[in-house]
Amino acid sequence: MIRAGIVGGTGYTGVELLRLLATHPAVELAVITSRGEKGVAVSELFPNLRGRVELAFVEPDDAVLKSCDVVFFATPNGTAMKSVPTLLEAGVKVIDLAADFRLRQATDWEQWYAMPHACPTLLEEAVYGLPEVNREAIRQARLVANPGCYPTAVQLGFLPLLAAGVVDPQSLIADAKSGVSGAGRKAAVGSLLCEAGDNFKAYNVPAHRHWPEIRQGLAAMTPDPVDLVFVPHLTPMIRGIHATLYARLTEPDIDLQALFEQRYAGEPFVDVLPPKSHPETRSVRGANLCRLAVHRPQNGKTVVVLSVIDNLVKGAAGQAVQNMNLMFGLPETAGLDQIALLP
Amino acid sequence: MIRAGIVGGTGYTGVELLRLLATHPAVELAVITSRGEKGVAVSELFPNLRGRVELAFVEPDDAVLKSCDVVFFATPNGTAMKSVPTLLEAGVKVIDLAADFRLRQATDWEQWYAMPHACPTLLEEAVYGLPEVNREAIRQARLVANPGCYPTAVQLGFLPLLAAGVVDPQSLIADAKSGVSGAGRKAAVGSLLCEAGDNFKAYNVPAHRHWPEIRQGLAAMTPDPVDLVFVPHLTPMIRGIHATLYARLTEPDIDLQALFEQRYAGEPFVDVLPPKSHPETRSVRGANLCRLAVHRPQNGKTVVVLSVIDNLVKGAAGQAVQNMNLMFGLPETAGLDQIALLP
Amino acid sequence: MIRAGIVGGTGYTGVELLRLLATHPAVELAVITSRGEKGVAVSELFPNLRGRVELAFVEPDDAVLKSCDVVFFATPNGTAMKSVPTLLEAGVKVIDLAADFRLRQATDWEQWYAMPHACPTLLEEAVYGLPEVNREAIRQARLVANPGCYPTAVQLGFLPLLAAGVVDPQSLIADAKSGVSGAGRKAAVGSLLCEAGDNFKAYNVPAHRHWPEIRQGLAAMTPDPVDLVFVPHLTPMIRGIHATLYARLTEPDIDLQALFEQRYAGEPFVDVLPPKSHPETRSVRGANLCRLAVHRPQNGKTVVVLSVIDNLVKGAAGQAVQNMNLMFGLPETAGLDQIALLP
Amino acid sequence: MIRAGIVGGTGYTGVELLRLLATHPAVELAVITSRGEKGVAVSELFPNLRGRVELAFVEPDDAVLKSCDVVFFATPNGTAMKSVPTLLEAGVKVIDLAADFRLRQATDWEQWYAMPHACPTLLEEAVYGLPEVNREAIRQARLVANPGCYPTAVQLGFLPLLAAGVVDPQSLIADAKSGVSGAGRKAAVGSLLCEAGDNFKAYNVPAHRHWPEIRQGLAAMTPDPVDLVFVPHLTPMIRGIHATLYARLTEPDIDLQALFEQRYAGEPFVDVLPPKSHPETRSVRGANLCRLAVHRPQNGKTVVVLSVIDNLVKGAAGQAVQNMNLMFGLPETAGLDQIALLP
Repeated sequence: MIRAGIVGGTGYTGVELLRLLATHPAVELAVITSRGEKGVAVSELFPNLRGRVELAFVEPDDAVLKSCDVVFFATPNGTAMKSVPTLLEAGVKVIDLAADFRLRQATDWEQWYAMPHACPTLLEEAVYGLPEVNREAIRQARLVANPGCYPTAVQLGFLPLLAAGVVDPQSLIADAKSGVSGAGRKAAVGSLLCEAGDNFKAYNVPAHRHWPEIRQGLAAMTPDPVDLVFVPHLTPMIRGIHATLYARLTEPDIDLQALFEQRYAGEPFVDVLPPKSHPETRSVRGANLCRLAVHRPQNGKTVVVLSVIDNLVKGAAGQAVQNMNLMFGLPETAGLDQIALLP
Repeated sequence: MIRAGIVGGTGYTGVELLRLLATHPAVELAVITSRGEKGVAVSELFPNLRGRVELAFVEPDDAVLKSCDVVFFATPNGTAMKSVPTLLEAGVKVIDLAADFRLRQATDWEQWYAMPHACPTLLEEAVYGLPEVNREAIRQARLVANPGCYPTAVQLGFLPLLAAGVVDPQSLIADAKSGVSGAGRKAAVGSLLCEAGDNFKAYNVPAHRHWPEIRQGLAAMTPDPVDLVFVPHLTPMIRGIHATLYARLTEPDIDLQALFEQRYAGEPFVDVLPPKSHPETRSVRGANLCRLAVHRPQNGKTVVVLSVIDNLVKGAAGQAVQNMNLMFGLPETAGLDQIALLP
Repeated sequence: MIRAGIVGGTGYTGVELLRLLATHPAVELAVITSRGEKGVAVSELFPNLRGRVELAFVEPDDAVLKSCDVVFFATPNGTAMKSVPTLLEAGVKVIDLAADFRLRQATDWEQWYAMPHACPTLLEEAVYGLPEVNREAIRQARLVANPGCYPTAVQLGFLPLLAAGVVDPQSLIADAKSGVSGAGRKAAVGSLLCEAGDNFKAYNVPAHRHWPEIRQGLAAMTPDPVDLVFVPHLTPMIRGIHATLYARLTEPDIDLQALFEQRYAGEPFVDVLPPKSHPETRSVRGANLCRLAVHRPQNGKTVVVLSVIDNLVKGAAGQAVQNMNLMFGLPETAGLDQIALLP
Repeated sequence: MIRAGIVGGTGYTGVELLRLLATHPAVELAVITSRGEKGVAVSELFPNLRGRVELAFVEPDDAVLKSCDVVFFATPNGTAMKSVPTLLEAGVKVIDLAADFRLRQATDWEQWYAMPHACPTLLEEAVYGLPEVNREAIRQARLVANPGCYPTAVQLGFLPLLAAGVVDPQSLIADAKSGVSGAGRKAAVGSLLCEAGDNFKAYNVPAHRHWPEIRQGLAAMTPDPVDLVFVPHLTPMIRGIHATLYARLTEPDIDLQALFEQRYAGEPFVDVLPPKSHPETRSVRGANLCRLAVHRPQNGKTVVVLSVIDNLVKGAAGQAVQNMNLMFGLPETAGLDQIALLP
């Protein structure tokens, strides 16, 4: 059994990691830490875990974490980078669900996250944990930067187009909609049911931290310079991201449906829907899955890709488990066979 | 007092018309018809109107309708066109909230609504009831085609850009999100709380009937040919449309904020927000108002307009009352001073 | 015009007061105070008020408040009692939307709100602002304690039964369900969309602060001792309270429907529905109205009353305006003719 | 492997059965029938099952059903009773998720379901499938009547009290709140998001079909006559039932917490929470679990029980699988270890 530790874990990413790891056939939950909630039973914070996870939150303790085979960081941005070097040195593998190791350039990190990076030399070693792009590197990695939720949905949608060179990389628009759990479990007025409920709005249109992460990922898919407009929106639901992607076709004769199906043939967690489909976020609720559909309205010059994930699963905890499976030589799908909950 | 009749009116457009007309200072509600609900008190179907609207639904009756000064059609598409000629002949003014008179070409109607038009000669006379574009014509009109909800939000957002000629009319993308009331009050599986709730999806990406209506409106704003991609989505809320609009700038030095503010200066029902704003649909819930914000992310070549309305008010019943006010020489804002309900 | 001031007013009660007062024909909004938000435009916090309320929040200032004819306190419990004596002395009428003056005994206040009362002598003078019970006293009052939301719904439901002496006052059960806005606009984990959404739970079953308030009100309706079980629940919606009330009949032959209709005949803001009805919270959304239905299942010994209000209107701001109207000799319905927003 | 068939199955009970059976270690899904949807892939109706259930709906066919080891009926009331005798004769075990075999008296059936019963002699043989009450009989049963959702939540809550004889059986009140999925997947105006969303109401207070079922179950728990008031409500969420139960204590010294814990010790799917708890419906979302808390407000004479289930799991499909496990000698928890999805 793999001994797994979780640092942080009082947020929605944490409870989802616990849900998945508690039934994972090859994992033993060894420890979960939280300064703020130490001594509190996990099941008191997350009543769904009552009877299923017996752990209580403990103060972070290097000795205990070093005894783990893998440590997941479900902490605010800027926390993991302080502890990761010590853990790696002790032979522990690390999966960071925050942003600390997602950007390859320390200067980008400092610009977008407004703090110096604590271990910039690890940025080069860290593998960006999008298995559909980096599977082999993840298998070898000691340190995986788990992608953000928007970046997962957007990159998987644009990937076949950019990889095949059939769209203008200067024409990319990602209009993305997220459920409110994307904002986390922190008490914030904007996330109240009475503020976010029965309401729809865009936010952070001038600048969002996922923009450089997405652009970096897209840039790696094509030799040409990439231009991306990214507009995130808040939609009144709990889980789910729907990314609607636009790009100008440069190859008008391409069979888009075949392109997508071929690119994702054999991928266990990407599902290309039949032509004329409209994926629904609920079709992946609670499941580690990205469902895609590709359209070309009026047979015109713009391709439209619809991409849905559960932001807490394929956009966070599920993808982290998928990465862990790869890092430890397990079947990639181990512990990830949940069927989406519908209705 | 203006004697007003409503044909149809068992749907959400109907209840909203009743709510607005019941407190309108210059209107007397004379009659409301419904074949299916004849004899039923309006307040039985719509409990919010109990004690406020004493009418019961009656069988449609030409004599009664002809005694009205204005008749609103809140009927399914294809119904109004059968009765309108008779009413106009009798000197009654007509406002159609359905699509019967929105498209100028009978061939377009027949293609998109799959039935022959009953009075194609009236298509030329009918005035498209978007006051911010057609105010003077509406004042003179006998027959107003009240715009669709998506078309209102999209046209008001693109109007300043196209009118000023500062964007490429071939680059227009409208990514629009609607609350479920846009689908009406009919019993349909897709509109159930358990289907549309906690869920997000695009629909009708290959073709939506509002596309030709929007394109026609946009084409009238610019001498150049227009190309429009329109992707509607269903969002799990009751009221509201949020349109996120994209266009490529051809005049990189234009002051977009000033352009929007100048175009809508003096408009009672269009509110241009300050720079860097994100309008929320709830800020117009129940109010006859379009709120707009204009962005230029990364100071790049794409302009992003955010446009919100309440689909049942500025996108339907409120705009219809605004048109009535114009047609009868009343103050344009008469009966339309409701403040949006928040939270 | 009545010069009105609001102390507090950054919460949902505040925005609702502003919405109602902004269109009240006899009121001039003079000042709104908030320490935390001073200098911020009201419309920045509450975007629905943009263009309708031009005030900005200011630091509380006795001189300005004393220049008002009436001051509403929309503050946390325990705030109003510190300022009220000074304002009354200056001839200002006061309506407190918090709990400071609701309980007649200072000892009850101290027990349930865990702080000493700052002006216990005013408790006797303060009039409990439930017009359907205390109308004449309110007309004469300088200081009105605006009832809580649950207490309004529960008392109006039990009133006809207790006043007529047809139920056992020892058998009262109030099973009440509230929308999340009842918890206010403060950032609290339990009120997040992702915690309170798609979820239902009871809370504070051992003890809730509205229990002594309700019991005090019910006790005044009957000479016999009252026993009340009160179980509040949180329901995943924004506005609305639904109280389901149970009592054992002692007069099995009573015509319950007639009893309710007679008791509330002439009441402008209480609506008794026909037999076999089920009032919906949305039928009063945004309106100052309590709708009631009375049932006797299986013609048995238990009477069931269904009572709905909008917690922010008849349960708070609307009732406060109703009280103001009475205190100033205005028509009781002035400024309160909004029709509920449905859907 | 147990060959399982499903008759009906186009509703929410059907999709939930499919979700559970598709990952059950001892079950092979053999057939699913639907007249209306024959030929349609299951995954087309229920997109969460894409890639997980390869079946298509077929016309009901006795030969195929008779080849099954067990057949689940997820049909409207009155359907199963027509086919069950034939299947039993063929040696197939049957679990009916509708109401056909829940009431022991054919006359009760006929009164409440307004049709004659097709096989009244089977009513005596049918076992009411509430394992916490009838476990041993279920193990031996050929025909199980799966309980209704409200009846499950209410009976499990009252059981310890009635079995121990510590409350007055004439004083029972069940105030129950259900998510909208309880109304099924049929197109009905009342279940639309725009009707049931952001709204709360009671319904069927004069009479609900679950009342005789609950009363029958409660009556079997006590030698004394039972009087029950049952008030169901619709709450704006998808899944979940919260029953708030009231009864008058006759044994004031009883330790209620211990009573509940002892009664349900060893029950795999009933969880008694610690004192002063408030179970949340989301804590059982997607899980086969009833969570209970027991209160005695103000240490008075009324006991309050809070009982939550997922109406589609412990209230329908999950309990059906639990019954199947018992009927086939499998571990009772086989295939039922899902952790509730939160948030």
